[in-house]
Amino acid sequence: MIKIGIYGYGNLGRGVENAVTQCPDMELVGVFTRRDPKTVQAKAPVYRAEDALSMQDKIDVMILCGGSATDLPEQTPALAAHFNVVDSFDTHAKIPVHFENVDKAAGESGHVGIISVGWDPGLFSLNRLYAGAVLPDGTDYTFWGKGVSQGHSDAIRRIDGVLDARQYTVPVEAALKAVRSGKSPELSTREKHTRECFVVAKEGADLARIEKEIVEMPNYFADYDTTVHFISAEELAANHSGLPHGGVVIRTGTAGDGTKHTVEYSLRLESNPAFTSSVLCAYARAAYRMQQEGTTGCKTVFDVPPAYLSPMDGAALRKQLL
Amino acid sequence: MIKIGIYGYGNLGRGVENAVTQCPDMELVGVFTRRDPKTVQAKAPVYRAEDALSMQDKIDVMILCGGSATDLPEQTPALAAHFNVVDSFDTHAKIPVHFENVDKAAGESGHVGIISVGWDPGLFSLNRLYAGAVLPDGTDYTFWGKGVSQGHSDAIRRIDGVLDARQYTVPVEAALKAVRSGKSPELSTREKHTRECFVVAKEGADLARIEKEIVEMPNYFADYDTTVHFISAEELAANHSGLPHGGVVIRTGTAGDGTKHTVEYSLRLESNPAFTSSVLCAYARAAYRMQQEGTTGCKTVFDVPPAYLSPMDGAALRKQLL
Repeated sequence: MIKIGIYGYGNLGRGVENAVTQCPDMELVGVFTRRDPKTVQAKAPVYRAEDALSMQDKIDVMILCGGSATDLPEQTPALAAHFNVVDSFDTHAKIPVHFENVDKAAGESGHVGIISVGWDPGLFSLNRLYAGAVLPDGTDYTFWGKGVSQGHSDAIRRIDGVLDARQYTVPVEAALKAVRSGKSPELSTREKHTRECFVVAKEGADLARIEKEIVEMPNYFADYDTTVHFISAEELAANHSGLPHGGVVIRTGTAGDGTKHTVEYSLRLESNPAFTSSVLCAYARAAYRMQQEGTTGCKTVFDVPPAYLSPMDGAALRKQLL
Repeated sequence: MIKIGIYGYGNLGRGVENAVTQCPDMELVGVFTRRDPKTVQAKAPVYRAEDALSMQDKIDVMILCGGSATDLPEQTPALAAHFNVVDSFDTHAKIPVHFENVDKAAGESGHVGIISVGWDPGLFSLNRLYAGAVLPDGTDYTFWGKGVSQGHSDAIRRIDGVLDARQYTVPVEAALKAVRSGKSPELSTREKHTRECFVVAKEGADLARIEKEIVEMPNYFADYDTTVHFISAEELAANHSGLPHGGVVIRTGTAGDGTKHTVEYSLRLESNPAFTSSVLCAYARAAYRMQQEGTTGCKTVFDVPPAYLSPMDGAALRKQLL
């Protein structure tokens, strides 16, 4: 059994806790939190985050479930000095620095750290790589949604007069259709996705002002066609409490003889954190196996042989899935 | 530059010849054929198949382009004793034996042999593995087509009174829809695919008898709803001369918290051999790199770290595709 620790116990940590129960070769040893362990209910013993280091010999892989903004840049290298680690770091511009930090710590301690695991970065990245390798002359497209963007929902919640909000990123059907046709269109940000917002406002708040602040918000909304719906707290709870997501990666390209080809990968996820957690568990298996075979340092999904993700052995994989 | 040899010069061999021109890090050194080299026109020098062994120091990877029925079971192990090799062996039931034979030869000679490369087996297999690893509790579906099955076309051509034929495998839309809905339907062979045949008959042939022989042919057609169209040789040449193919791999499953998820991978290929050839070239790159790093023996797509398929280095992959 691969002994798993969960470091950070929010949506993602609870997802990993559930995902481990679906892995016949894994066992959850402990949950580590910055809160008072007495206040946290989990399916395994709960420990203080700072007690993790004393459990080095009891945990094969620590799955880091903190946020990319401030938690993971510190936690992943710090824990890679003592454990095999897997994280879902997704601040794209900072991946090179994060990779270097984790590589140094894991290399020195003789562990494996797999970073930026999930679906994007993660499975979508893999599909960009595979499709690009087999269709060198082509164009990549990634569409996200329909799904909830937590960053955009949070941005709306920070507006004065807003009590709660949920933002959906929605791919534009016409853009998808143009891409699938193989025409390799050049698409602007606005042409690829729209943004749909469900907002609960304070009683008496100036709705026109809130709507204007949303649709004109730089980086988040200004470059998109954005729709704002004001709804009640009850309606938000009833119809928008989930965290669905998904998207599509498409590559269209031309082979050496001029023939056209389309490779498409899509995900439809009822729960973004639940699915991301499942991916983290599969890569925790890989991290453990790679270290057992003598590999050390930082890896990404690009470096992991697919077979390491499955509980099946090579002969069974070849017989049943090849 | 990775120096490539092509062994066998039919549809697939010509596809590889074209695909190599799209790989900036590859160079085609020679084409090996069982025909008289003087009768073969290619974009590289043409040699007799039996002269391959004298060119061991000039070729980094030999891409085997023979058939799975009789060529590859002999050729791949024989050549793996002298070269890194890649093949597209697709006789599913015989993969375990083929793997053992190639593993022994490549292991003893210190080479890498990657077998069963293409899209199914190949990219479809990879997607079954990835989706199964991240959704352990789920159901796999593979649909093929719409596309030309050369085996089924050949089977029709062997019927008395048939001059030529082209058979399309067509996925049943209702079945695809039921699968995508997440209902995990149990589908019979007949419910998943139909078969559509375009047949050129000899003048005066008994068309009713030919049609009956097709639709009742065991293994090939009897388990399917099959449609037969008799057309002229001119119409076959005009509308059915290509070898398009493709298909869809879908896994629907439930995460540990009960949420539902769908992973779907699809290919739409204007030319089956051209696309398969492109996949073979990407895995030739991987075979070369793996052997350079000291790996030996037989591998499949499951064993190859994705990064080895791309001409980009790790830092560029992380920056541009992760």
